[in-house]
Amino acid sequence: MKNHSIYPTIQTFISSNNERELVRFCARQHPADLAAAFEEALTQDMHFVMTRLNPGTASKILSHMAPELQSKLLIVLSDEELSAMIQAMYADDRVDLIRNIPDIRKDRLLHMLAKAERQDILKLESYAEGTAGAIMTSDYAALPADITVREALEKLRLEAPDKETIYYAYVINKNRSLIGSVSLRELILARPETRLQDIMHMEPVRAKVEEDQEEVARKILKYDLLAIPVTNGNEVLVGIITHDDVADVLQEEATEDFHRFGAMSHKVPDLSLNIRDAGFFTMLQKRLPWLLVLVFMNIFSGAGIAVFEDTIAAVVSLVFFLPLLIDSGGNAGSQSATLMVRALAVGDVKLSDWLKLLKREIGVAIGIGLCMGLAVSMIGIFRAGPDVAVVVAMTMVLTVLFGSLVGMSLPFLLTRFRLDPATASAPLITSIADIGGVLIYFSIATWYLKDIIAAAGAA
Amino acid sequence: MKNHSIYPTIQTFISSNNERELVRFCARQHPADLAAAFEEALTQDMHFVMTRLNPGTASKILSHMAPELQSKLLIVLSDEELSAMIQAMYADDRVDLIRNIPDIRKDRLLHMLAKAERQDILKLESYAEGTAGAIMTSDYAALPADITVREALEKLRLEAPDKETIYYAYVINKNRSLIGSVSLRELILARPETRLQDIMHMEPVRAKVEEDQEEVARKILKYDLLAIPVTNGNEVLVGIITHDDVADVLQEEATEDFHRFGAMSHKVPDLSLNIRDAGFFTMLQKRLPWLLVLVFMNIFSGAGIAVFEDTIAAVVSLVFFLPLLIDSGGNAGSQSATLMVRALAVGDVKLSDWLKLLKREIGVAIGIGLCMGLAVSMIGIFRAGPDVAVVVAMTMVLTVLFGSLVGMSLPFLLTRFRLDPATASAPLITSIADIGGVLIYFSIATWYLKDIIAAAGAA
Repeated sequence: MKNHSIYPTIQTFISSNNERELVRFCARQHPADLAAAFEEALTQDMHFVMTRLNPGTASKILSHMAPELQSKLLIVLSDEELSAMIQAMYADDRVDLIRNIPDIRKDRLLHMLAKAERQDILKLESYAEGTAGAIMTSDYAALPADITVREALEKLRLEAPDKETIYYAYVINKNRSLIGSVSLRELILARPETRLQDIMHMEPVRAKVEEDQEEVARKILKYDLLAIPVTNGNEVLVGIITHDDVADVLQEEATEDFHRFGAMSHKVPDLSLNIRDAGFFTMLQKRLPWLLVLVFMNIFSGAGIAVFEDTIAAVVSLVFFLPLLIDSGGNAGSQSATLMVRALAVGDVKLSDWLKLLKREIGVAIGIGLCMGLAVSMIGIFRAGPDVAVVVAMTMVLTVLFGSLVGMSLPFLLTRFRLDPATASAPLITSIADIGGVLIYFSIATWYLKDIIAAAGAA
Repeated sequence: MKNHSIYPTIQTFISSNNERELVRFCARQHPADLAAAFEEALTQDMHFVMTRLNPGTASKILSHMAPELQSKLLIVLSDEELSAMIQAMYADDRVDLIRNIPDIRKDRLLHMLAKAERQDILKLESYAEGTAGAIMTSDYAALPADITVREALEKLRLEAPDKETIYYAYVINKNRSLIGSVSLRELILARPETRLQDIMHMEPVRAKVEEDQEEVARKILKYDLLAIPVTNGNEVLVGIITHDDVADVLQEEATEDFHRFGAMSHKVPDLSLNIRDAGFFTMLQKRLPWLLVLVFMNIFSGAGIAVFEDTIAAVVSLVFFLPLLIDSGGNAGSQSATLMVRALAVGDVKLSDWLKLLKREIGVAIGIGLCMGLAVSMIGIFRAGPDVAVVVAMTMVLTVLFGSLVGMSLPFLLTRFRLDPATASAPLITSIADIGGVLIYFSIATWYLKDIIAAAGAA
């Protein structure tokens, strides 16, 4: 509710040129709310406000902005205004922002920063997207092992303004290797004269700099951490990843799985893009590729049907049940794929579980197929006579079994070949199930109704 | 890697009856790793270890266990052993555990606890599942506004062992109403003589006790909080929710959306159930209901086809293209639904965006339809002549448009009526698109091929 009144209030201050009240008002708002309010603001108003605030406040708002909104603001900010904000940002947010800036301007901006900061940015930026290195920050608190708790607390107090968190401190040796961790809570509870080495946790849980960001996120969840230290190949501490960045990673990964499972192309770089604002061509690029692949796969269903032209011509009522049968196989397959894709993604199921799950799947699919076969055969008798009803019922059991086995196995197969299991999308499973369904249906029909077909051919 | 060696090591200590080394070894492991190691352990071994550890350590391991594993252990623990662990647990974990215990035993256990603890459990347990109240903890740090920073730090230090977090403290007035918040970092940086009222944040972001847990999770993410205070209708502070519980909520909600979108029933209570271990009947209950609903919907496709029996009998080659056309409509619809369901779930898109998105969807769908119509008409000419090719191409454009509009609008419609948008599952959209596709296809064919059909009828 609050958000809705922020921008109108800001506009009043701007139109009355009351800069002092404007700054005071903004200082009382949460940076995340201001960033949200700017979503609907005129660019010149946003520019006016951002350049009146001190760079510290402005940088916090900038960190909370969506990439599209950042880009809008970046265009109107001068290099001086922007570099002041960049300096005030946390190392990880800063790198996210820098990635959004065209190369020429980036070089100019980097040369306006101190050398140490420039090197820090270039180093963080060099890690591949999707790795721990790409989301970590270098603003962590590191302490030597031989100082006392009192000294450690004093050091954290002095460093607090520049660190992303002081609730965890990491203990390093002379080579900057990570040898322990200690929480602020533990420091506060310990006797002031104790040495860190006597209270620190040895061998703290850590992430490797090249580790997949999703793995890192799962580690933080598993161990209920506020932050996780990141080390390079030599066990040297190079950064930390905080809990808030991890929640974002899990959200992104879930969205990516969801989209992929809906047969959306992921070639288009758009994870940070709000679907509401995507343009015509972005949407076309995202959606068309898989649809075309699937259409050409479906030609096999058509070819399958062509083989059985005589059967269809003899018993046209078979066509009534075609959508129902092939859809049921596809639906059962989508269900199985849904369960497996998500379970593999969150780690509930492992590659080695395949055989065990396959056995259960066969049982469950036959159970489902029998229930559904019974249901449709009632309609079959009523609509097309007992012979067609038997064909429809038999087909139902086999198509549901076929669809389910494809749907549950394909995600495993993709995982086995190190591909994303979510590529086994609902539409892909449906199309494979359709081809199988067409062949099963008309094969059974041709065999079971051979007398009727022969009689029609003779007539 | 480490996990794999935990249980074998434990077994060695048990068989050599070396309790002292066993306890020492377990103390060096993370409780989450021990909980994971017990997944493969014999129940008697798990019982042996858990009752040798002090209740504090044992309760931490218990909190990290999955519900099924907890149940296994609960059966073999005596009431005395269990109540000692319950006493040592955090309030929110304790309530999760208590929910897992049959009523008779629960009453017995509650009466073994102190009165204040018993009341706390009963109160937390009374909040409806899925609300802030159900996941909050009562182990928070609350401070009056008129004490100094020095006094506040001393108070936090004393309370630290019993609180889930001391990194945020909440400022309350005499009625226990929430009036401010202050972080431990701010306390450490402030001058010791300052009063809390002078440095606290006024009107901190909060959750209502009956608020949906997903909304609460999004607030914590938006404002990058470690914890959020929970208030009742009178603004009285009743609990806090910490960041780690929120990550679990988001994971659960994403899984729920994923399953629902794959047409899995959510009547079966199974969010905490690992899909790997679900039994035959659980799976049948989860999967069969929607499949049956969809099969009966598909009877409409069959009925649609029956109306056009003469058209099909006259031009049997039309059937070749049936799976391809209805699938394409379903696939395009699944894509649109995927995008909307996820965007509505994470809040990227609002109900009010529908008209704007509908306009774009019409443009994008026609674009996709034209590309795909062009592609299949090539095959159409080759396989069934130019007349059928024209029918197929026109149908493609219209079915893709129909499927896309249904796929994008249905999630909005469900949201409008306060239902879960993910109920617009891929299989449901596919079935609706199929019915539409059948009618569009054979209507166009009957109209465009009327001369051929009339000739066939005359022959």
